[in-house]
Amino acid sequence: MRMHLDLLPDFLRGTAFLGTGGGGDPYVGGLMLRQKLEEGADITIMDPMELDDDGFVVSLAIMGAPTVCVEKIPCVLSMVKCLRSLEREKGRKATALIAAEAGGLNGTLPMVIGAMAGLPVVDGDGMGRAFPEFQMCTFGVYGVSASPIVLRDEHGNEVIVRARSNLEAERLGRVVCTRMGSKSEIALYAMSGKQAKTTGVLYTTTLAIEIGRSIREARETQSDPFAGLARYFRTSRDKRFCKVLFEGKVVDLLRETTRGWAIGRVIFEGIGTSTGEQLEVRFQNEFLVAQQGERMLGMVPDLICVLDRENAEPITTEGIKYGQRVRVVGVSVPPVMRTPEALDVFGPKYFGIADVYTPIEQLA
Amino acid sequence: MRMHLDLLPDFLRGTAFLGTGGGGDPYVGGLMLRQKLEEGADITIMDPMELDDDGFVVSLAIMGAPTVCVEKIPCVLSMVKCLRSLEREKGRKATALIAAEAGGLNGTLPMVIGAMAGLPVVDGDGMGRAFPEFQMCTFGVYGVSASPIVLRDEHGNEVIVRARSNLEAERLGRVVCTRMGSKSEIALYAMSGKQAKTTGVLYTTTLAIEIGRSIREARETQSDPFAGLARYFRTSRDKRFCKVLFEGKVVDLLRETTRGWAIGRVIFEGIGTSTGEQLEVRFQNEFLVAQQGERMLGMVPDLICVLDRENAEPITTEGIKYGQRVRVVGVSVPPVMRTPEALDVFGPKYFGIADVYTPIEQLA
Repeated sequence: MRMHLDLLPDFLRGTAFLGTGGGGDPYVGGLMLRQKLEEGADITIMDPMELDDDGFVVSLAIMGAPTVCVEKIPCVLSMVKCLRSLEREKGRKATALIAAEAGGLNGTLPMVIGAMAGLPVVDGDGMGRAFPEFQMCTFGVYGVSASPIVLRDEHGNEVIVRARSNLEAERLGRVVCTRMGSKSEIALYAMSGKQAKTTGVLYTTTLAIEIGRSIREARETQSDPFAGLARYFRTSRDKRFCKVLFEGKVVDLLRETTRGWAIGRVIFEGIGTSTGEQLEVRFQNEFLVAQQGERMLGMVPDLICVLDRENAEPITTEGIKYGQRVRVVGVSVPPVMRTPEALDVFGPKYFGIADVYTPIEQLA
Repeated sequence: MRMHLDLLPDFLRGTAFLGTGGGGDPYVGGLMLRQKLEEGADITIMDPMELDDDGFVVSLAIMGAPTVCVEKIPCVLSMVKCLRSLEREKGRKATALIAAEAGGLNGTLPMVIGAMAGLPVVDGDGMGRAFPEFQMCTFGVYGVSASPIVLRDEHGNEVIVRARSNLEAERLGRVVCTRMGSKSEIALYAMSGKQAKTTGVLYTTTLAIEIGRSIREARETQSDPFAGLARYFRTSRDKRFCKVLFEGKVVDLLRETTRGWAIGRVIFEGIGTSTGEQLEVRFQNEFLVAQQGERMLGMVPDLICVLDRENAEPITTEGIKYGQRVRVVGVSVPPVMRTPEALDVFGPKYFGIADVYTPIEQLA
């Protein structure tokens, strides 16, 4: 598959959806991608099954707080330099790129870099959504080392982290990123084609395009985009559970840019079908849990997406504000993200949530 | 010159003196050095003039808060790995080592590593004392890049910092060090023999041995060790000013281990010749300024050394405690450390002290 201009709006909407509020607002990355496509760039979205087992695949991302990344925009030249440094570290030239996370800016930028470096981008990613920490890539959950990690800022400072574990790599990388101003370009998870195929969450680029399309087509036919979404997920390749969990407006918001993330919670007062109720959603870059009083409606790693009430446009954690009318949608994630190993790394417990993970379809 | 067991006690006392309270307590480093010497290690202290201009000289140090380093002791194996990584970064094998700072632990450890790696250690260092930040090496003041810097912890985690400036390298390295537990082994300031000769503070290993000896000899002849010190500095190679600034006991101490340093101030109440007066000494790992009310008695980069009142044994910032009876001694530093470029980097202004630097001999 080739990325082209006609696919772009659907892709950007879908990647924002998969970002569950995080991964960075895809707006700027979308403009960069549009520019490349308008210049005639040839961006190949590669079926992961076509990856040579002995290929050399590199992940690229922006690390930091989304609240910062709307002002300190990504430096694509710096990302290319990250790629080159990681290639030097490993003594090999990359044969393909893969997104560290499917969501938002980080779902988009690898294609821009792919265009600049002449490399295909794998249809898939390392999170199947967005997560706030980089040991949370399924690559890492299933045995790939995140190190060496290259971090750069837009001034030309570069740091290489070679850690004993991916969690320690995250902790060391995070303080560097925070020091760099809570936004760094990074390259990490250098791996073989076989590793990318067996540890990644596959076909999430296609998934993003199809999610975006389902919302657009519903809008175009004047039908309910939320119904369009639910219909799409019922029939999608991996047949996912999808449900509107709550309908409300933002009445309270606590958001801090701290320790390299945007951390906080948002309170929705029920409207429409949820009148008289209240929902709290906590976030760390991404929406993590949705709860009504003591009752959990959705828990990480399942997707909790906050969408505009009327047109189902995804809203990011840095873009959310008082008075917005939204529907909160819950979507299940594929089995690869629900194994005990996966839940150890990015289940609710890691985020300090006392409740045991319960799949969203059981909570409903 | 060869380091040998007979020189060791004098050297350790002198290096602690030059540490001006910091550089890490030389006790543990001294034990390591003693062990090497007892095993028959051949440790060459090399006259800097014998350095080949095209030689490849590397600085090694422990970075962090001295309060931490008394508990998390240096990992010499980790220091050797730092050296090897820096050699790999630069594609050359080191021909000599040089201490980043003359003071304390960091004046001692390069000899231990020299013994392990079979490398001579230059008679000299990059600070002529100890300072809390690594852009403060005269190597950096006079144009040598601190980067690439290798930082390691005792668990095998490694970080490489390649920064645009030495100040940015320090800032990035500091957060990594803090994350590593406020103690890291580091290798930095890879440079040519010519650079080491022209930018270092030379013959400070000899200076440390001679300082230590002057105190010991005075003790052995039952004479005042402070008079012995003053006599030594009057006749030393670089003829330094040396004066007892204050005689007192510790009556108050504020010391925080924060942001990777031990930061605070100590108040001395006058005894003996200073009865009725009070002295405040501020420190950031090292003693920085000594003041009586508004009157400055000594200012960084001049040496402010806190010594036991009776036997002139140096006291470190992490070892200082309530009730200690001390004499505070001020010593001038050589011209290379008092140029405008040098004062820009490690003069009082950098440490947030409003007063303009005045040489200690003028303050007296």
